[in-house]
Amino acid sequence: MHVTLVHVYVFPQHLQEFIEATGKNHSASIREPGNRRFDVLQDPKDKTHFILYEVYVDPASAAAHKETGHYKEWREVVAPWMAKPREGVGYIGLFPSSSPLS
Amino acid sequence: MHVTLVHVYVFPQHLQEFIEATGKNHSASIREPGNRRFDVLQDPKDKTHFILYEVYVDPASAAAHKETGHYKEWREVVAPWMAKPREGVGYIGLFPSSSPLS
Repeated sequence: MHVTLVHVYVFPQHLQEFIEATGKNHSASIREPGNRRFDVLQDPKDKTHFILYEVYVDPASAAAHKETGHYKEWREVVAPWMAKPREGVGYIGLFPSSSPLS
Repeated sequence: MHVTLVHVYVFPQHLQEFIEATGKNHSASIREPGNRRFDVLQDPKDKTHFILYEVYVDPASAAAHKETGHYKEWREVVAPWMAKPREGVGYIGLFPSSSPLS
């Protein structure tokens, strides 16, 4: 499995709008055929810090996400609310495996 | 949702055993009623670094995990392979929500 943890820092005055826009992106992203996770986490010690936990069955599916309308819309909408550039950190997803049953 | 990212560092000579033992823990943990995720990630830049991505519907379910036989067995089996103490970092899981349908 192809895993990315995307760290996002948002200006405090835009937290609620960011959460709403990202919830919409979550709902659309989990319907992508190669998606297995699109979880949105908030750091309780720094509520301006979010992690998008994105899991795709393979790198091609992860790349396809960036071509979707919902991703492009999200990216554009949230851009002015970013306190600094997003940082994606890649991991190998060992479990669950990428088999259809996992 | 109650999310914990547990960072684990394993001695290089025990990677395969750690992966096997942790796969077993994964398989049992995802059957716990309050569990929503028990994903196991490996850092491609440092293959001795793993993240356990654990999501429970509430803190009580996360606490109950630590009372299970499979957790206790895993903790005991992997203890001699740990290169340093595990570190768990807590997050608020915004999406998916903790509703039964999410």
